[in-house]
Amino acid sequence: MGQAALSIDGVLEAAVYADDLDAAAGFYGGLLGLKEILRHPLRHVFFRCGGTIVLVFRAERSRIAPSGNALPVPPHGAEGPGHICFSVPGPSLDAWAERLSRAGVAIEADFRWPNGARSIYVRDPAGNSVEFAEPKLWRQAG
Amino acid sequence: MGQAALSIDGVLEAAVYADDLDAAAGFYGGLLGLKEILRHPLRHVFFRCGGTIVLVFRAERSRIAPSGNALPVPPHGAEGPGHICFSVPGPSLDAWAERLSRAGVAIEADFRWPNGARSIYVRDPAGNSVEFAEPKLWRQAG
Repeated sequence: MGQAALSIDGVLEAAVYADDLDAAAGFYGGLLGLKEILRHPLRHVFFRCGGTIVLVFRAERSRIAPSGNALPVPPHGAEGPGHICFSVPGPSLDAWAERLSRAGVAIEADFRWPNGARSIYVRDPAGNSVEFAEPKLWRQAG
Repeated sequence: MGQAALSIDGVLEAAVYADDLDAAAGFYGGLLGLKEILRHPLRHVFFRCGGTIVLVFRAERSRIAPSGNALPVPPHGAEGPGHICFSVPGPSLDAWAERLSRAGVAIEADFRWPNGARSIYVRDPAGNSVEFAEPKLWRQAG
C-alpha cells in the first residue's frame, strides 16, 4: 500500500469545551461572526470557519458514550481552559481588537512574535484562550 | 469601520493536551506523518497539517503564565480527553485503518454518518479522541 494513499488534507474539526452553549454561540457566532451550523441544546454547538469546523461541547454530555441505536461516537470531554487560534489578516487585527473591546471582551495580550507576526488574545465566555493571529506566524516554521 | 475589515480566514491552530510529548510526537509525527515544526521538551510539540497547526501542550506547563522578558502568552491547559478531527479523502480511510491497526492503535469506531460521510476514530497516546473523516461530512451543513 503506497504512502500516497495515506494523505491527511488538514484539520477538519477543532474542539473547545463550554458549559454554557448560549454564551458560546453569542461569542463564536454573534461576536466573531462564524456561521452556526448545528446545535444540540444540551451537548454542543458547531460553527463553520473557512475549511474547518469549530466544535464547542459541553463536556458533561460529550463524555457520555452513546447507547441504543445512536451512532457509536466515542466520548470525550476536557476541563479547564483550552486554546484555539484563528487566522486573521494583519490589517484586520486592529478592527478585531476594537470590536472585541467594545463588546466588553478584554484584550488579554497583544504582541508581535519574533518573526513579526502579531497575535491578540482574549477569553471566550468559558475561559478558553482564543487567539487571533496573522498566518505568517507559521509560514516559515519547521 | 466596515464589516469587511473583520474577516476570519480559518482555524490557524487546534490544540490538544498530552503529558508525554515523545509519545505525542510518535503518534502525530511518526504514525500520522505530520511534520513536526517546533518542540519545547517540557511544554509543547507542534505539527503542520495543511493550513492548520496542531498544537500538543503539556497542560502542567502551558498553565504557567510567562514571566520576566518572555512574551506574554496567556496560560491555558485542559485535562481529560479532548477531540480533533482530520480531513481525509474517503479512499484513504481503509489505508489509514490498516496503518493504525498494524501500529497497535485500536479502531474505536468506524461508521458512516447519515449523509454518507465515513469517520474512523482512535485514541492518541494521551487518550484524546482522534477522528479521520471525509470532508463531505460538513459540506452541506448549516
